[in-house]
Amino acid sequence: MVATKEDFGHHISQQFNEDLGKVHAQFLAMGGLVESQVANAIHALLDTDAALATSVQENDAQVNAMETRIDSDLLQILALRQPAASDLRMVIAISKANTDLERIGDEATKIARLAKTASEEGESPRGYTETRHIGNQVRLMIREALDAFARLDVEKAFQVLQADAEVDREYQTATRALMTYMMEDPRHISRMINVLWVLRSLERIGDHARNLAEQVIYMVKGADIRHVSFDEVEKQVFSK
Amino acid sequence: MVATKEDFGHHISQQFNEDLGKVHAQFLAMGGLVESQVANAIHALLDTDAALATSVQENDAQVNAMETRIDSDLLQILALRQPAASDLRMVIAISKANTDLERIGDEATKIARLAKTASEEGESPRGYTETRHIGNQVRLMIREALDAFARLDVEKAFQVLQADAEVDREYQTATRALMTYMMEDPRHISRMINVLWVLRSLERIGDHARNLAEQVIYMVKGADIRHVSFDEVEKQVFSK
Repeated sequence: MVATKEDFGHHISQQFNEDLGKVHAQFLAMGGLVESQVANAIHALLDTDAALATSVQENDAQVNAMETRIDSDLLQILALRQPAASDLRMVIAISKANTDLERIGDEATKIARLAKTASEEGESPRGYTETRHIGNQVRLMIREALDAFARLDVEKAFQVLQADAEVDREYQTATRALMTYMMEDPRHISRMINVLWVLRSLERIGDHARNLAEQVIYMVKGADIRHVSFDEVEKQVFSK
Repeated sequence: MVATKEDFGHHISQQFNEDLGKVHAQFLAMGGLVESQVANAIHALLDTDAALATSVQENDAQVNAMETRIDSDLLQILALRQPAASDLRMVIAISKANTDLERIGDEATKIARLAKTASEEGESPRGYTETRHIGNQVRLMIREALDAFARLDVEKAFQVLQADAEVDREYQTATRALMTYMMEDPRHISRMINVLWVLRSLERIGDHARNLAEQVIYMVKGADIRHVSFDEVEKQVFSK
């Protein structure tokens, strides 16, 4: 049996399922925080803003606290409410996605640390255009994935999977270009490797956003599509 | 209420909890496979063995299938058995740890791909000693974490947390050394960056092994110690 958006909407609006609705809302709030952490970390790097980088590092504790709180609330729901069918899938999906959000927060913190290094040791002569571009892409992926999570929108989730494939390609191109620059200008290898780490973190953030989207498809369609071919996923998503 | 090893042993041995025992065994089997994937990926790199690298890449499908199977079985247990207390914590811990095992498998596949690149483009003049050393450390961490999972041994789990801190330090030292070599010998930058990626994957594997260990402490002690200071964790682990 496949749950529809209406099933979820119906359930969440009911009193008996208030707890699940609250965790869902907490999850989306955490998503908003994590999204702004990524945005600020990238700004800190591009604008050499060490103070902003520090605030990203400090806010990570809040992300961690939200992760712990959400998992604890999910445990309560499992223990006391014994949810079934689509509710149970939502609990599991939020539990998995919670980990991904926290990891996105970790990557934002890594970027913030690299932004600080860059503000101390000097900027890389190359790689910022690519960082800005891929940074915008993965921020959009996070937003779209959270939006898909909020609306239980599998088509939007599918778009996030497509966007991740594009990010992976651009990441490959950007890193190859940076390696070429390093060979041409070995004096700035250390600075360019910092940008390489930033790009790597952005690529990882894209992977985590894709994981969020996969959980949306799992919640709504009841299908585990994590290791399924793209064509097969497309079929699942657009089936009625 | 804190569960003891005896509680778990008692539960798992009972008929009514046969399903959970089976998933626990599947999880450990998957752990064994993942551990050998990491070992083979490192061997493939150090021995420039492209055939072994290919077999690691091929076996990843098996790791993925096991992840899917375990999550599906956990869903069944939650839906049909409605486990409580320590059983419920074990379900959640295996669910989280399952993701970490699959990600370790992904990192092994990345190392295998880099091993292939190295066998085609030539070896890096530097970094293999560090790769071997850190590789041995993280393999041991995986084994110890799985052993802690099997025996519900929180003291062993705590040792894995300590080992991860050591791996992180050695990873930092190794990457700094490699960057220095790159500046001295820019002709081989591309090959050395491949080793840098391998080291990064090993460091990530260490993080995932630490996550496994954290889940052991969660199962046995009922405490979420993911974002808790080392001293505080030590207190939890050694409390009766």
